[in-house]
Amino acid sequence: MTPARGFATDEFETRVTKAQVSMSELGIAGLLLTTEPDVRYFTGFLTRFWESPTRPWFVFVPATGAPVAIVPQIGAALMAETWIADIRTWASPDLQDDGVSLLADTLTELTPRDARIAMPMGHETHVRMPFSDIRRLEESLGSRSLVPDGGLVRSLRMVKSDAEILKIQTACDIADRAFGRVPEIAETGETLSGVFRRFQMLCLEEGADWVGYLAGGAGPGGYRDVIRPATDRALAPSDVLMLDTGVVWDGYYCDFDRNFAVGAVLPAVQTAHTRLIDATAAGFETVRPGVRASDVFAAMDAVLTGGAAPDGGGRLGHGLGAQLTEWPSLMAADETLLQAGMILTLEPWVDVGEGRLLVHEENIVVTDAGARWLTRPSGPEIGRVG
Amino acid sequence: MTPARGFATDEFETRVTKAQVSMSELGIAGLLLTTEPDVRYFTGFLTRFWESPTRPWFVFVPATGAPVAIVPQIGAALMAETWIADIRTWASPDLQDDGVSLLADTLTELTPRDARIAMPMGHETHVRMPFSDIRRLEESLGSRSLVPDGGLVRSLRMVKSDAEILKIQTACDIADRAFGRVPEIAETGETLSGVFRRFQMLCLEEGADWVGYLAGGAGPGGYRDVIRPATDRALAPSDVLMLDTGVVWDGYYCDFDRNFAVGAVLPAVQTAHTRLIDATAAGFETVRPGVRASDVFAAMDAVLTGGAAPDGGGRLGHGLGAQLTEWPSLMAADETLLQAGMILTLEPWVDVGEGRLLVHEENIVVTDAGARWLTRPSGPEIGRVG
Repeated sequence: MTPARGFATDEFETRVTKAQVSMSELGIAGLLLTTEPDVRYFTGFLTRFWESPTRPWFVFVPATGAPVAIVPQIGAALMAETWIADIRTWASPDLQDDGVSLLADTLTELTPRDARIAMPMGHETHVRMPFSDIRRLEESLGSRSLVPDGGLVRSLRMVKSDAEILKIQTACDIADRAFGRVPEIAETGETLSGVFRRFQMLCLEEGADWVGYLAGGAGPGGYRDVIRPATDRALAPSDVLMLDTGVVWDGYYCDFDRNFAVGAVLPAVQTAHTRLIDATAAGFETVRPGVRASDVFAAMDAVLTGGAAPDGGGRLGHGLGAQLTEWPSLMAADETLLQAGMILTLEPWVDVGEGRLLVHEENIVVTDAGARWLTRPSGPEIGRVG
Repeated sequence: MTPARGFATDEFETRVTKAQVSMSELGIAGLLLTTEPDVRYFTGFLTRFWESPTRPWFVFVPATGAPVAIVPQIGAALMAETWIADIRTWASPDLQDDGVSLLADTLTELTPRDARIAMPMGHETHVRMPFSDIRRLEESLGSRSLVPDGGLVRSLRMVKSDAEILKIQTACDIADRAFGRVPEIAETGETLSGVFRRFQMLCLEEGADWVGYLAGGAGPGGYRDVIRPATDRALAPSDVLMLDTGVVWDGYYCDFDRNFAVGAVLPAVQTAHTRLIDATAAGFETVRPGVRASDVFAAMDAVLTGGAAPDGGGRLGHGLGAQLTEWPSLMAADETLLQAGMILTLEPWVDVGEGRLLVHEENIVVTDAGARWLTRPSGPEIGRVG
């Protein structure tokens, strides 16, 4: 059974209240947001229209009071269906002043003279507006300044509510069902591009709103990386086929992969796959509140390399939710303390030689008791297609 | 027949040469690029991995010499398959220094002491890296400065090569075939969310690599806007159903819509649809090299409102290609001179009252002789589903 779409208004109120508590602690007068997931987090505004880079969109969360949306006219009707009451619009695109004056006026109205206005500026963020307009905005603000948010948005978004977890669970369930049907669409002689197309169709048939991400590979005994689009090469016996997908349901992603031996299973492939599953299990067993992201990395790396991962030896998982990938990173340098409600991928990889690798990925949620699978975890035996 | 994937190397060389001629004229020492379409334009690097916001990616096109890719290690293998020879990588994510030092070192090595290094900073652009890292980069560069590119990338990307046009044509053909099959999937009683899912499946079945965009609406006699995702509301008699899609083929988009009367056709709906088709035709007839974007707007607006469009009365079309929407905008304020090779949408809309509208959209290419349809243009009679 799929959960209800959207969120109750009190969920947004809670998010804003938490942000305002942090703002008070950090001495900032408000939070200026420009990206799709950040705007959606505080408003519920959900549209694929962000795919168009033409127009900037802004939300300001003041240190006290309700959020304000400063958005192109084309989005007014949809924004009005969210819980946001104060919606200010302009006729975008405006080649002379694409919302900058309206934004500056709003910030001036809602913050004191020497306000520090925070934006997410750290790792895994960007500011989605023309750079020249950021410079203009800073000039227009005069004595007010744009400052880093000190990880405020990161801290909030990283811990998911029960309602968010249900949506991610739904996305995982959809992809799990689609992965279970891969033998229907993949076999020796089929092109990888054909498999990609049909796999996306399966995800949609199983209930995806859209397929936000699909990458993968296929090659003899392994593949070269995990980020590439499909080629028209036909699957061949002893290939390993890997599909890695981010299915979207009500704005939330899953992100996991499955490996399939094509025709015969090479012993080296089975050995590598078993190691990946062992590493995943080691990660899963390590996860609980208070443990560091780096601890989970270490547990997995111990299985994969005996703890010998080279400096910068990649990360072995990451957060996800409103985006395909989010903070934290399961890697040696990330000391983020895990909290109940965080969603993580466990994503070990092994080098199988000749420039090829195998990657496995599952999704979990951190609970008070440890961890819970959101995906149906793979067993050690690699999947097979004909 | 679908064209070959990718581009011949000389196409990239031509793009770089053109950029370098402009750089010389503008007195800039190179071009720093951070976004997916800009990086792809100069390198051919095509991956859906940009969906992950975690890692920044950089390409530097110096005023003389070959482009340099400064990219996360995870992308090295795929980048090595492009024509780019100079690929510099770091182990991203690096929480302390996510490529900034490597980028600064590269720019310092490849540009003179007081170099002006250009970035796209204008309308419809953003800089895809953490804002704190841009500030660090500017500090690291010392006497070198980051300056606007003066529309250099816009000018280049706006005019498509024959090979690019073929890819967009292919995307249009795929969507055209899918639109032709909408009566198979939409009828009274079917939910809009079900129609959205099945329409995406049709696009994939007809050859889409992926469905980068789908929005639409359905309502009695019209819909409220053109940007929203589907609801679970069932189609009802006398609804107008609109689907607006951006199908991707080899990295290039189409962007057009189709309207369908559900069950009966209301006379007001047919009248509005005829006006939309007339406006589209007026736009098409106006298009030729040397005409302004605003002229095409005016020709369409004359049909739609008798030239009475309010100030900021929206735009009636736009460029497209490597993105769903690109420059220019068909609106009163955009004086861009059309050139052969530009791809445009013609996108008239009419207010049908009670907060509802109808929107029509076709894709064309500007030719020496005028314009050529990339879509199979709709006739005046609105499409129908049962």
